[in-house]
This record gives sequence, structure tokens and C-alpha cells, in this order.
Amino acid sequence: MPDPLAEVRQELAIANRVLANEGVVDAFGHVSVRHPDNPGRYLISRYGAAELMQPSDILELTLDSKPVEPTSARLFSELVIHGCIYQARPDVHSVCHHHAVSVLPYCITGVELVPVMHLGAALGGKVPFWDSRDEFGDTPLVVTKPEEGRSLARALGTQWMVLLRRHGATVAGRSLRECVFRSIYTCRNAELQSRAMAMGSVSTLSPGEAEMCSSHSLTPRTLGRAWEYWTFRLQKAEAATARAGTQPPRAKTSARRSQASAKPAKRARVRAGGRGRKAKRGTKR
Amino acid sequence: MPDPLAEVRQELAIANRVLANEGVVDAFGHVSVRHPDNPGRYLISRYGAAELMQPSDILELTLDSKPVEPTSARLFSELVIHGCIYQARPDVHSVCHHHAVSVLPYCITGVELVPVMHLGAALGGKVPFWDSRDEFGDTPLVVTKPEEGRSLARALGTQWMVLLRRHGATVAGRSLRECVFRSIYTCRNAELQSRAMAMGSVSTLSPGEAEMCSSHSLTPRTLGRAWEYWTFRLQKAEAATARAGTQPPRAKTSARRSQASAKPAKRARVRAGGRGRKAKRGTKR
Amino acid sequence: MPDPLAEVRQELAIANRVLANEGVVDAFGHVSVRHPDNPGRYLISRYGAAELMQPSDILELTLDSKPVEPTSARLFSELVIHGCIYQARPDVHSVCHHHAVSVLPYCITGVELVPVMHLGAALGGKVPFWDSRDEFGDTPLVVTKPEEGRSLARALGTQWMVLLRRHGATVAGRSLRECVFRSIYTCRNAELQSRAMAMGSVSTLSPGEAEMCSSHSLTPRTLGRAWEYWTFRLQKAEAATARAGTQPPRAKTSARRSQASAKPAKRARVRAGGRGRKAKRGTKR
Amino acid sequence: MPDPLAEVRQELAIANRVLANEGVVDAFGHVSVRHPDNPGRYLISRYGAAELMQPSDILELTLDSKPVEPTSARLFSELVIHGCIYQARPDVHSVCHHHAVSVLPYCITGVELVPVMHLGAALGGKVPFWDSRDEFGDTPLVVTKPEEGRSLARALGTQWMVLLRRHGATVAGRSLRECVFRSIYTCRNAELQSRAMAMGSVSTLSPGEAEMCSSHSLTPRTLGRAWEYWTFRLQKAEAATARAGTQPPRAKTSARRSQASAKPAKRARVRAGGRGRKAKRGTKR
Repeated sequence: MPDPLAEVRQELAIANRVLANEGVVDAFGHVSVRHPDNPGRYLISRYGAAELMQPSDILELTLDSKPVEPTSARLFSELVIHGCIYQARPDVHSVCHHHAVSVLPYCITGVELVPVMHLGAALGGKVPFWDSRDEFGDTPLVVTKPEEGRSLARALGTQWMVLLRRHGATVAGRSLRECVFRSIYTCRNAELQSRAMAMGSVSTLSPGEAEMCSSHSLTPRTLGRAWEYWTFRLQKAEAATARAGTQPPRAKTSARRSQASAKPAKRARVRAGGRGRKAKRGTKR
Repeated sequence: MPDPLAEVRQELAIANRVLANEGVVDAFGHVSVRHPDNPGRYLISRYGAAELMQPSDILELTLDSKPVEPTSARLFSELVIHGCIYQARPDVHSVCHHHAVSVLPYCITGVELVPVMHLGAALGGKVPFWDSRDEFGDTPLVVTKPEEGRSLARALGTQWMVLLRRHGATVAGRSLRECVFRSIYTCRNAELQSRAMAMGSVSTLSPGEAEMCSSHSLTPRTLGRAWEYWTFRLQKAEAATARAGTQPPRAKTSARRSQASAKPAKRARVRAGGRGRKAKRGTKR
Repeated sequence: MPDPLAEVRQELAIANRVLANEGVVDAFGHVSVRHPDNPGRYLISRYGAAELMQPSDILELTLDSKPVEPTSARLFSELVIHGCIYQARPDVHSVCHHHAVSVLPYCITGVELVPVMHLGAALGGKVPFWDSRDEFGDTPLVVTKPEEGRSLARALGTQWMVLLRRHGATVAGRSLRECVFRSIYTCRNAELQSRAMAMGSVSTLSPGEAEMCSSHSLTPRTLGRAWEYWTFRLQKAEAATARAGTQPPRAKTSARRSQASAKPAKRARVRAGGRGRKAKRGTKR
Repeated sequence: MPDPLAEVRQELAIANRVLANEGVVDAFGHVSVRHPDNPGRYLISRYGAAELMQPSDILELTLDSKPVEPTSARLFSELVIHGCIYQARPDVHSVCHHHAVSVLPYCITGVELVPVMHLGAALGGKVPFWDSRDEFGDTPLVVTKPEEGRSLARALGTQWMVLLRRHGATVAGRSLRECVFRSIYTCRNAELQSRAMAMGSVSTLSPGEAEMCSSHSLTPRTLGRAWEYWTFRLQKAEAATARAGTQPPRAKTSARRSQASAKPAKRARVRAGGRGRKAKRGTKR
């Protein structure tokens, strides 16, 4: 029987690798999408770096962040970020959490991230700042408990991006493509705001401009153009690193395959992953 | 019958990809060239990212930015930038519009971009600053209406580069190669001016130096050397990303071919472009 | 007889190339690991850039930094950095010394490197600053004498990272993977601290947060995820640069092979290494 | 008859491409080496970007910068930089002139470039600043006349590096490898000095340290290690961009071959070089 989620798994796997290829996520960070037909579920990859993810690595979860089907795959410890936002915001269909270098200085200093150029208006009206100490005191800063996830979702409120003190950013979208676009262009805006601040005082777009710029960017036409570009770049990057006559490099673990079948290719001189990974499987990060 | 514009289409497609490869344009930004024989027309690619453009993606337009031949291809919404400058400036034979990271801080802060090193003198005598609010109030900041295009062309005046508040830059040239050279080296100059400002106070070249430096750089000999270098780098970058034994990655849409014939290659694991793009075609961005 | 150290040689060679691929080391810098069974020995590559190292380039040394077996391979002049830390700190199982661009400004200005985000807490409680002039006056700044190595180890004390004035950083770990993780994420933290300082005043994580963040990151699960990512990236980078149908580029010198057998491949158009290298072999840098 | 200069041509061609691969030179910049047997001559490439240069592009010139053999190749207009330094400084065996982004801010602001870390001490005791206006008033800033070259050589004096106001840097060495090493590590030092200045006040190494650090770095052993690394990286970069089963991309022009034989390969989709280049040949830049 064909997998009814094949297309969305493919799209989400590509989004993972696009976000890695564009420098938004690295070893850490994750992106999810709400189930296309069942708003009580969402899809996200198994535990691991976004750059490695293929359609077979995509899992289906309830909004309580429990796997719909039993799986031996490891799960992210910060799933509540996704689940709690989907619960609180029916209009959100995709969530990305990242620690991009361009955005972190705002999470460290508390300087407000504001739209400084037309494409940066995709950040929405305002970017709230969530300080985990307000409700939880000293923590490891990661968001792993349902009450932390709900607190973060409250901080996001009706906005589309929230900064997490000393940790990173969480970005939402009405669609996967909008979420990817917002993730990439808010990083660009953050970089430009920092550069502009180094040269002089910086102000924001007028509210009217911000509103009109955002509406102009977040159309299927503009999102499609950017998506076409990012996937083209990803395709080229992956072609460059696939050795001639062989399959492209592939990580060992897959969430949907039997693990026994996933042997690393003979040619691989570098062992991806390795020992110590089979010891513990579950939802702990 | 051979296409009399084959050579210029090829040159313009390469210029698109050179500007992408050198970091001037990304998902957004475009470059055009005046028709070599008919000064009442110009050539520019279909809607899409510059990195994807091939000769078959190049369209011929009147100076009112209407396609000379009927086309099913999408057009940029900011064509008036090009058309209005060609109308106002018979000496201009190429126009580039971009949002490069190095130049945007000047569009955000209003700090004047000045020539700080010999190659930066290619920016011309002075870089005017166009503020769309002066005539149009709050807008989405993009330049889509003929009156906006004419206003921008007036701001450019007799100069060769103009900054657009909170948006980007528009660069003109007496030839395509001059326009590409000016686009790349004004980005370099902007980067250097910012770095120098972070270290101390910055002044400009003397007027005499600026004039002599500019004349020295904008010769066929120097432009040819830089063009040789950028196309060599592009050729290498494209060779690196073309998988052995196959064609290089290729985007799906072509402005001059029947769309039915443009099937993505079987090997492509990443779908460039995608759904939602066929719904609306026309000149709206 | 199979080499009982084959696995650790392979792991250390990969760590060398991962650190190069992630920008921590370049022509200079080195990483070592304590012998898995004999705490009185450690392994480190022959003299040379980390990016070139293969398992056959890994040597076994005593804690006095003497080769266990006679070798014609050149040795690093700064081996005492490794040997003296292993002598002073039985809990240390891996050491990395580097001159990364992100960290050097702290070695130049004396600004304290502090954890500014959750992953940066991997730097440990505090990063001491070692000034070679305090005990040794003017030197070439490199650490080549046993008394210098012991002084540096005393400065490190019970911490996990120490800055060397005008020179670089030395990082320790309970395991090779922890040392690689700490090396990479302290560079990231340093970059972020610098960017944040440019935007406003910067404070550190609270002691409780720093402790909890560090414990959270330095688990086999998180270290394994990051290792999987970095080795995947390395594998892709090496696939990209291996010409189809041939072996990947390979440096001429190997610590464990007879030198006569190490002919550069015919296809190599660039001669790696070259003349003047056979004249002098030994422990002098 | 075998070319007695084959080895030095090969070494210089590699040095050209190493300097391009490491970001010191781009479309502009050049490096030369004194003739190994005849101190009254030097070798340098034909006019063009360093990244393109192969042994057949290397020309032999007198110290008056005249070609020893008649050539149809174009020559750099700034040859006097090289010739005049070789005339003034018998101890100099290699010269590099570049416009690297890291060094230009010092040429723009006049901030003194000083050794801030051990490898940066390779810049020598002091870096003089040459202001072309002092003797020549307004010029195009390039150094094309013998009197300008002699003035620059006087400014260099007994040092190893000189900054050219608003233009770039000229670096000398006792050997080609020393010149390459100094070129790369003075760029690194400049980058670090700028970063350190952004974080606090910056001082220099003590004179004793600078002297000892420089002596330590400029040994055949250390120069050889760095050369091995840079050529390894170059070899990998060139392997990545050579399409499988074909020759690597190759520029059209060669100084030593008949031009008729230099046809671009059929597969080349990007035309390197192009029209307008045959019109004028000579020593004018």
C-alpha cells in the first residue's frame, strides 16, 4: 500500500536539508509540519542533525508528542516545542527551532529583533523574548517539559517568531514553505540589523511598510521562487558530494526501516555515528 | 533560423549565474541588458533566481516592459526598474538590481557609500539615496509601478548606482560587463567601508583619484580580466555540482520551451520548484 | 597480527579531519587521545596539518612525549602540551591545541571567555589565561619545553580549557568526542560572545545554568549526535574532492609506512609537500 | 630540450593558485619569484587572475620588467612593483602584491598593522605605509611607472611588507614559500587585529617576542608544513571542480603556447574570457 504521507515526508526531509544547507540549523535544530489531513498530528524527523534526514527518517506524532506507531527510533527531547505550539495555534502548520549564529546575539543581549529591510518583515509584527527563568528558574535552557513548551507557546502568543534567552529561536508558519522562508529571512534580517547597528543607529520599518512588505513576500508566488532556489542549491550541493557511480553519503539510522538492513556502504572511510548510540533509546535528550 | 540574439542570451545567462556565484544576488535580484541592435528593447530572464538561468530563460521586452512575443513565462514584478532606466538614460546598456548583504546596511542606516579604495571608484561620482516614502508614502518597498520606476530613474540621475531605502541597490553600466564589474566591486567597497568604519574614521578618495581610478578600471582590458576570472570560477563551481556522467542540475521552467517538455531528470532527488506555481501567471510579483 | 590500536587510530584520524573541516585547526593545531588501555601513553599524529591525517599517521607516545617505537616520522615540537596535561590530569583522555580565529581575539585582548549560550557551557566553569611571560619572559610563544608544558598544565588546573596569551587555546576532554565537541562549541561561543559584545553589554549564564547546560550537552547521546553530524559532513566533503574513479588526494608522508612506498599518484597536478623536508627529522619544530 | 625553468614555473603556478584558494588574491593581485640562477631576472605570470595560472603561463623578465623572449602574451601593468623591489633588495627572492579584504581596512584608515599573535610576527619588524600622493599627487593609485615602483621600494626599505594607501599590500620573502607564508599569515593577523580592536584596546608583541616568533616560523620545517597543507587543499579543490572523465577547467590564454591551439573544451558551457581581448596587447594595464 502506498504511503499516503509520502509526499509530505519528502517535502519535510528536503526542508530539513535546505535549512542545513542555508546555515540555519547544524548538529542541532529541527523543523516539523502539521499532518496535512489530521490537525491532531504532526510530522518531524527522528533525533539527529537535519542535514542527514531522508523521507524514511520522518515520524508521525500526536500533539502530545507521542509517536503514532511504535518506533525504535530516538526522538528529540524538545518535541514539546512543536506539540505545544500546534496545540495553542490552529493557524500554525509548521514550526522550526534553531540556534543560528546570526540570531543568537539577540538571545544573548536582549536587543530587540526588528524588521530592517523589506524581506525581513516576514518576521511578523513583533518578536517576543522568552526568559525561562521567569517561570522555571535555573534550567539546562532546553525546552523538554510540557509546562515549558506551554510557557513558550504562551510567549509566542499570536506572533510568528519568539526568541529564547541564551538558547535560540522558534519560528512558525502557515505552511512549511512559509516557515522555511521566515526562518531564513529572519536570520538574514538579524545579520543586517547587527551590521547596521555597527555603523549607526537603527530604526525599524514603519508599521504600514512592515505589514505591506510581509503580505508581499508571503504569497505562493514569492515563496515558490525562494523554494525553487533553495532546493536547486541543495540539489547541486548534494550532487557535488555524491561520489561518481555511487549513492550519496547516507547516515546509518533510519526511523522507518529495520535497523539491521542499514549497513554503511563499503566505500565509506568515515564512520558516521558510531558506538554508544544503541544503549539508550527513548524521548530523553 | 538561427536566433540572432543567441549570443546575448548566452552572455546574459552567464552574467546571472556569475552574480549569484559571487554573492551579489540570491533568490532575489535580476540583471538585464539593452538589445544590441534595437535601443527600444531590452533582455532579462523570466521570473526566478538568477542562479538557475540559462539562455532559454531570457526574454525580450520593450522599454515599457512588455514581452515582444507572447509568453507563458512569469515575469518579474520589478521590471519597471529596468525599463524606466533604459528610457531615461540612452547611455545605459545594462542594469542590475540586488539586495546584497554588504550594501544593505547603507540602505538601512543612510550612511553614504563612498569610494574607499581604487577598485571601489567604479561606483561613479556619487551614490544617490532613493526614499520611496518621499513620493509614495508607505509601500511594500518593491518598485512595481511605472511612476515608481520613473521616480527611481530620476533619483539615479546621471549617476551609475542608487541605493533604495530598506530595500537594496540598482546599478547601471555602459555594457553588461561594466554593470557586472560595478555590481561586484561596489559590494566589495561597501564591505571594506564598513570594516574601516569599525576601526576608525573613514574618508573618501580625492575627486581626482576617484575619477582616475574609475577610468583605469573600466577599460575593456580590465573588465575582460575580471570577466575571465568570474566565468572561470563559475565554470568550476558548475563542474563541481554536475554529477559525473549526467547533465548538471537544471530547473524545470524555461521561458522559451514548451513547458510540457521540461521533465526533471530521474536522478533528481530534490524537486526544484513544485506545486502552486501554475495557478497564476503574469506580471504581478 | 592485527593492530590492537586500529580503532583508536581511525577515530583519532577522523577527529583530526573533523576539526579541520569545522575550521578549528588549519596548517597548525593538533589533537591527541590517551591510550585506551595504558594510561601512561597517548596517541597523536605525526608532524603536519590535521586535514591530512590518516590512521597510518598516528603515533604512540609515552607521557614524556617519546615515541614508543622508533620512527622516522617528524614529531610536533609542542608535544609537551599533551604529555604534561595527561601527567597532571588522570581524568583527561583527550587534548586539542588550536589557533582558531574565533578564539584568538580573547588571547590577544585578555577579555574573559564566558558561556553566553547553552551549548557554550561546554567550556566548563572558567577559562584560565596563561601568560608565558610570567615564568619565562620573552619566548617564541610556542610551548616546547617540559617546564613550559608543566606550567601550562598548572594554569589549566582542574578546568577544561585554557587560553594561551597571543597564541591560542588548549582544550581537554574526558573522551575524544567530548574534546572535539568542546573545541567546536567553545569556538562557536567565542564567536557569539564577540558578536554580542559588539551589540551591547554581555553577561554570562548563571552558575546553575552553566552547570546544568554542560551536564545536558556532555552525554553520550548528545555527543553522538554531534559526532554523527560532523563525520557525515566530513564524509561528504571528502567525497566531493575525490576525483571520480580515483583515490582521494593523499599526502606523501606516513608515519607508519616505509617512506619509499609513498609515491604521489600520477594524476596529482599539485605536489603536496616537496623539497627540503627530508633534511632534518626529529622533535624540533 | 627540457625547460631548465620547468620546476620553478610549476612552483610559481601553484603559488598563484594557492594564494587564490586561500583568499589572498582574486581577479587582481600577482606573485613573482626571482630567477633561481640569474639574479638579474624574475618570473611572473602573464596578465590575468592568479587562479587560472599554469606553468605555461609563466614568463621570464629582466629586472626592468621586459620579457626575455618576445611574447604575444599580455603583461601586468604593475610589473614595476616586482622589478623595482628585486633591483633594490638583493635579499628578496619573491614578491606578492594583493588587495585582500582583511588588509585593506589598514590601507584605508592608516591604522598600523602590528603583530598580535605568534604567527603574525611573520610580518617582520614594522609595516611601512606608502602614500602615493606624497610624490605623485592624484594618480589612479596603481603602480605602473618606474619612478612609482622605485618610490614604493624605498618605502619598503629593509622591511618585508608595505601597505599602499587605498590600494593594497606588497609582501616580500627570501623565498617563494616564505613570501606565500607571509602573505597568508599577515592577512590572518590583520583579521585578528581588527577583531581584537572591536573588543578592546590592542597592543603588539614585545620586540623580543616578535623576533623570536618570526625566527621560529620562518624555518624550512614550518614553511614546508604550511606549504604541504595549502597544496593539499588546492589539490582537493581542483579535484572537486574537475568533472569526471575530463580535464579540469582551463582558461583559453597561455603565454607560452601558440594561441591557435588553445580551444575551449566542447563541454564548457561557460565561456572564459571572450571578445574584446585581442584588440590590444602590450604592457598597458
